[in-house]
Amino acid sequence: MGATQPATWFERFEKLKFELLTKDPKTRARGGRLHTAHGIVETPVFMPVGTQATVKSMTPGQLRDLQVEILLCNSYHLFLRPGHETVARLGGLNQFMGWDRPILTDSGGFQVFSLSSLRDISDDGVRFRSHLDGSEHFLSPESAVEIQAGLGSDIMMVLDDCLAYPASHFESEKSMKRSIAWASRCKARFDALVAAHQDLFGIVQGGIYQDLRKESAEQLIGMNFPGYAIGGLAVGEPKPVMYEVIEQVEPHLPEERPRYLMGVGTPADLVECVALGVDMFDCVMPTRHARNGWLFTKQGHIVIRHAKYKDDPAPIDASCNCSVCRTYSRAYLRHLFIANEILSSVLNTLHNLHFYLDTMRRIRQFIELHRFDELLAETRRVGGH
Amino acid sequence: MGATQPATWFERFEKLKFELLTKDPKTRARGGRLHTAHGIVETPVFMPVGTQATVKSMTPGQLRDLQVEILLCNSYHLFLRPGHETVARLGGLNQFMGWDRPILTDSGGFQVFSLSSLRDISDDGVRFRSHLDGSEHFLSPESAVEIQAGLGSDIMMVLDDCLAYPASHFESEKSMKRSIAWASRCKARFDALVAAHQDLFGIVQGGIYQDLRKESAEQLIGMNFPGYAIGGLAVGEPKPVMYEVIEQVEPHLPEERPRYLMGVGTPADLVECVALGVDMFDCVMPTRHARNGWLFTKQGHIVIRHAKYKDDPAPIDASCNCSVCRTYSRAYLRHLFIANEILSSVLNTLHNLHFYLDTMRRIRQFIELHRFDELLAETRRVGGH
Repeated sequence: MGATQPATWFERFEKLKFELLTKDPKTRARGGRLHTAHGIVETPVFMPVGTQATVKSMTPGQLRDLQVEILLCNSYHLFLRPGHETVARLGGLNQFMGWDRPILTDSGGFQVFSLSSLRDISDDGVRFRSHLDGSEHFLSPESAVEIQAGLGSDIMMVLDDCLAYPASHFESEKSMKRSIAWASRCKARFDALVAAHQDLFGIVQGGIYQDLRKESAEQLIGMNFPGYAIGGLAVGEPKPVMYEVIEQVEPHLPEERPRYLMGVGTPADLVECVALGVDMFDCVMPTRHARNGWLFTKQGHIVIRHAKYKDDPAPIDASCNCSVCRTYSRAYLRHLFIANEILSSVLNTLHNLHFYLDTMRRIRQFIELHRFDELLAETRRVGGH
Repeated sequence: MGATQPATWFERFEKLKFELLTKDPKTRARGGRLHTAHGIVETPVFMPVGTQATVKSMTPGQLRDLQVEILLCNSYHLFLRPGHETVARLGGLNQFMGWDRPILTDSGGFQVFSLSSLRDISDDGVRFRSHLDGSEHFLSPESAVEIQAGLGSDIMMVLDDCLAYPASHFESEKSMKRSIAWASRCKARFDALVAAHQDLFGIVQGGIYQDLRKESAEQLIGMNFPGYAIGGLAVGEPKPVMYEVIEQVEPHLPEERPRYLMGVGTPADLVECVALGVDMFDCVMPTRHARNGWLFTKQGHIVIRHAKYKDDPAPIDASCNCSVCRTYSRAYLRHLFIANEILSSVLNTLHNLHFYLDTMRRIRQFIELHRFDELLAETRRVGGH
């Protein structure tokens, strides 16, 4: 003991570290802590999506007030505009967007497959046209890492081959194997770049096929990533199928590493998937729905444009303690929405993000109390979302 | 003295009171304080415009942080949507929009003349079609007061006949006389309604004609309004004409009542018109220009979309201490504007409003020091805006 120097703060946090603090006795739910160069994140955690280096309509100050701990930003969008090199010149994403807490970036793959046109996919990578101006670009495992290194995110994701649903076993196997090869090339490029404060997560693929998911997980674990994502879900498959895939993948993932379920989901999904052992989530649902006037409440959602709210003095949710519910009536929020006011997006986003973050706080509290099964049962009883 | 009961807070502030605190020795600039039911306003003051019961893109909290003291809201817009009766049922504008400080409402006349179609103007009032859905409505002096009573603003404005520029002496006289008759009817309706915490300002009209402006002022003063606006300016006339009209009207207005110049203007206009004795201003310029990416700086304006700002790490204005200039680069603000992000409007509005409010703070400081002529000279030397 005496001979071992205590780690300095800098050494301690320069690479990501996950502390598994507690495990719920009746479910697979886990409580933990993710240490990053930009601070500590309590898990399970929900990451709001800041697509173009901004969580739409929110200032960083508002996100801090909401107690947002970590954001996700989209490499595809930032690569096209303003460009990762511009962001790098301006000090990286944190400085660029005035956000001093952790950031996770995706690889850009998912948006290339879902937004761009002319996707020419080979083992080398993906050639695609920008959805903005039709300009042609090439994304490889190596360039995906370079882009994210330029952005300077705390957690980077490997480039994976994003399969449409449904897909045959043959297609899924081919796609999974390509994703494994890409993950290996991402890892090699990442190790060569030695981005001091950054880390790279692997992504388990394999569609809905148990054997492929198992093989994908095992191959990735062989590469020793500090965290593992489950990808290729929430792409149109039925909910029970999604839950089943997670349930079957989870035992193959190392307990001491964080698990991140990409692009999921509804508030009920968060509870269900935490029960299956997931630690990290991201989803555009709270922010996108907010801008469309779809507001979450503990009794289900409300659609704020409806005429019945014209004179309604009640808050969105009387049991909610967010700044919007403490200040504004449904009537005012309806007025702002109908009048197409920017403040409509701002206030609706504040409320929906609070709802998601509050759901995560409840999740963490029930895990800490070793009573997560009760929250799960309550969620299933109430239904909705 | 001993026999006089001191006024209670409620009595003290139930009606508007203007304190003239100081007069600049070399110009007509005045420093004062406006006491309203919703608090005290330091004058000269700039009122941001909250057209549809929201200053576009701003939360009330952000306006408080900016030290906004009083807002202007537009009766025409709120009459059409959500309706003044809805606002009244929900407790009035302050409660509706979550703003606890003073509000001034215009009469709706200006928007009827500028936004709506089918304007059938008679001595009775104005028949017009909504710019939203073409529905037909009638605005009279009496209904203008009733609408504003429903909205519950601290300061209401009389309905006036809004003349286009240019207009002949004959047209201007006819219009001014109609405005005087309407002001009288507004006053009668206002006195009958007895809105405890509200007050009604008169509006001097008469176009660019000195004799008509003088007659208008004298007639209104005969009705004993607690404040007087100068209307019908900033409608296309040359700047020197506008300044001349103000210079000629001002001596006819009672010193102990606040003077409000409607719809003006640029930062330089604020300084010039304070020098002519104006106490209150409103204008959409800082907020509208913000959304169009036109940002004010002490060295003139910048247009944030320009390519030269793509990699510019500097703030909008290095000498500005607003939250935006302390946090964000021009490069980031350009990115948000180009990407059509909501946060672009939010941050640009924060900066431009800060610029206007800071201009007013400097104006008040120079008045207090009895050195306002120096600020006026500096403003003319720097030019711009």
